[in-house]
Amino acid sequence: MKATIERATLLKSLSHVQSVVERRNTIPILSNVLIEAASNGCVKLMATDLDLQVVETLSAEVDTPGETTVSAHMLFEIVRKLPDGSQIQLSAADGKMLIVAGRSRFSLSTLPRDDFPVINESELPTHFALPTESLKQIIDKTRFAISVDETRYYLNGIFLHVLKNGEGVMKAAATDGHRLACVTVSCPAGAEDMPDVIIPRKCVVELRKLLDECEEEIKISLSASKICFDLGHAILTSKLIDGTFPDYTRVIPTANDKLLKVNPKALMQGVDRVATIASEKTRAVKMTIEPGKISLSVTSPENGMATEEVPGEYDADHLDIGFNARYLLDILGQIENDVAEIHLAESAAPTLIRDSDQSAALYVLMPMRV
Amino acid sequence: MKATIERATLLKSLSHVQSVVERRNTIPILSNVLIEAASNGCVKLMATDLDLQVVETLSAEVDTPGETTVSAHMLFEIVRKLPDGSQIQLSAADGKMLIVAGRSRFSLSTLPRDDFPVINESELPTHFALPTESLKQIIDKTRFAISVDETRYYLNGIFLHVLKNGEGVMKAAATDGHRLACVTVSCPAGAEDMPDVIIPRKCVVELRKLLDECEEEIKISLSASKICFDLGHAILTSKLIDGTFPDYTRVIPTANDKLLKVNPKALMQGVDRVATIASEKTRAVKMTIEPGKISLSVTSPENGMATEEVPGEYDADHLDIGFNARYLLDILGQIENDVAEIHLAESAAPTLIRDSDQSAALYVLMPMRV
Repeated sequence: MKATIERATLLKSLSHVQSVVERRNTIPILSNVLIEAASNGCVKLMATDLDLQVVETLSAEVDTPGETTVSAHMLFEIVRKLPDGSQIQLSAADGKMLIVAGRSRFSLSTLPRDDFPVINESELPTHFALPTESLKQIIDKTRFAISVDETRYYLNGIFLHVLKNGEGVMKAAATDGHRLACVTVSCPAGAEDMPDVIIPRKCVVELRKLLDECEEEIKISLSASKICFDLGHAILTSKLIDGTFPDYTRVIPTANDKLLKVNPKALMQGVDRVATIASEKTRAVKMTIEPGKISLSVTSPENGMATEEVPGEYDADHLDIGFNARYLLDILGQIENDVAEIHLAESAAPTLIRDSDQSAALYVLMPMRV
Repeated sequence: MKATIERATLLKSLSHVQSVVERRNTIPILSNVLIEAASNGCVKLMATDLDLQVVETLSAEVDTPGETTVSAHMLFEIVRKLPDGSQIQLSAADGKMLIVAGRSRFSLSTLPRDDFPVINESELPTHFALPTESLKQIIDKTRFAISVDETRYYLNGIFLHVLKNGEGVMKAAATDGHRLACVTVSCPAGAEDMPDVIIPRKCVVELRKLLDECEEEIKISLSASKICFDLGHAILTSKLIDGTFPDYTRVIPTANDKLLKVNPKALMQGVDRVATIASEKTRAVKMTIEPGKISLSVTSPENGMATEEVPGEYDADHLDIGFNARYLLDILGQIENDVAEIHLAESAAPTLIRDSDQSAALYVLMPMRV
């Protein structure tokens, strides 16, 4: 193999592939990036952690087609430190890859291409395309709610499914049992009969990084066990979480009759301030809601007390309710309008938060006892 | 106590004092800041870790003079989160301090002022003043070399002393046994007979933060056990390290007869690149120096090999020498000219690095076997 690649091009692709590679690996080849140089001037970079695989394609001057694998982090660091504008020559032979640019020469040990594990991208019967903006919205509005509790592995991702009632609706949801985020988009053609899938957090994170550089539409293929995102310059393939997502629609309240309208930024700032006093563990903030006024308060035996008033529009009965400040801030941070709708029932009941009844996203927050 | 202070003023002072407060304290009052409001409109904030004490003075509208102590980090966080432009009212009574600004109210528990430990700033017989720029230079050029090895506590600071030979020279030095940094400034009036002192790292770090906002001159008072920096708006008092700094002048080579002149930036970039390959532990880079050429190389059994050439001016005998890349980069980063002078003797001998023979700072680096 022998190919020459412009530094900026190589660096960008390597930054994508190396972030899929885990820092510690018991299987040595998983630390490596697979480099395939084809005679048509295409160079492919591939990395995997056995669950998630990324393939980047870039153009290069290929003298000798061929393939090899070298340490992804090492190659990334070398290319990062080379001067901007460098032409980088990669050549592999005899178990070594030589990297030459200007007065710098590096020789890295390689591992054989044949040992590199590849996730098969075929046998994915469902095909559809989503606008890049829809996919961004799905991820941005839900990923904060993905559970980090590994014992509830079926909550460690975003649940994507299509309603089978013929309404033409696709829904994405994430929850950790304390809060739920749900986004509704129109069902793209081809996805009508797709199986319900749970996309793992790492796939979500890597996918989101790539989306900023993507064109209008993302082609998605999936089966019940795998999903593949074709982003043009990159293809991301991931195993899906093999589990059953709980029936989250049952926790979305439909009869919360007390509506509070509030400026989300003003409420966030107030909650953030009074939460300074809250103990690290519970982070509980109490909201006392009366017509025209929300009082936020925190009492902590060790630290003291804090109160703050925030204006709000409300004409139902007086209500005291407590929330985890962190969770409430996460959700309020998602509201885009100047007014957030907070639909309440009572102190112990799930609360619904959204921009308006027109918005694609809705959030459910479980209260805390305060 | 009752006083009203503008948020920006209070925030700036609190950011200084709270950084002296350790995050974990076995003595509760050490987590607190002492607030003293005087009838002349002066508010003093004081914090200490028993070794280092900072006192900030700011102007306020004082209704009722008085004093109290509250959690420094808590007060800092509250003030930080209050809106810019707020007028913040502090009032203390009955074991509580009330903080009121706009619609926000906080009540923090206090501890009695009398329990607050104070480092006595009197009994410091030596008095002199240093230009702020000289003090910045002393710190900036030496602090990277301060040892972090707590078993060699006498190296955990900057050694400051005046040559007793009547040359009118003050010297500052820091070393960790692998590298040494030394700065020479002219001896200020009043410092001629000062005792040799070792200023602890934490004092150096906090002092440096404050210097950017300081006027032309810093008034320094010291004894053999304490040092006090009067910065105008703030007074920093620190205990000195009770130990003997080694006679570092003996390791500064005087007969290194091989002179290499090199662009420090070019050498840094080269060293940084080849060091990518070096094992995390040794970080060893080999320099092969010949007339007109420096070859940098690293060989690592696990990672591979790297070489790079850097142009340099040299007309002595061929020399192979190894350095810890991190240490060499630290020193080269201090060179301000376009040319660094590297004075070499042989592979196992200390190397002298400096801007020129006119420069106030010089560095000594011990080589490594490669």
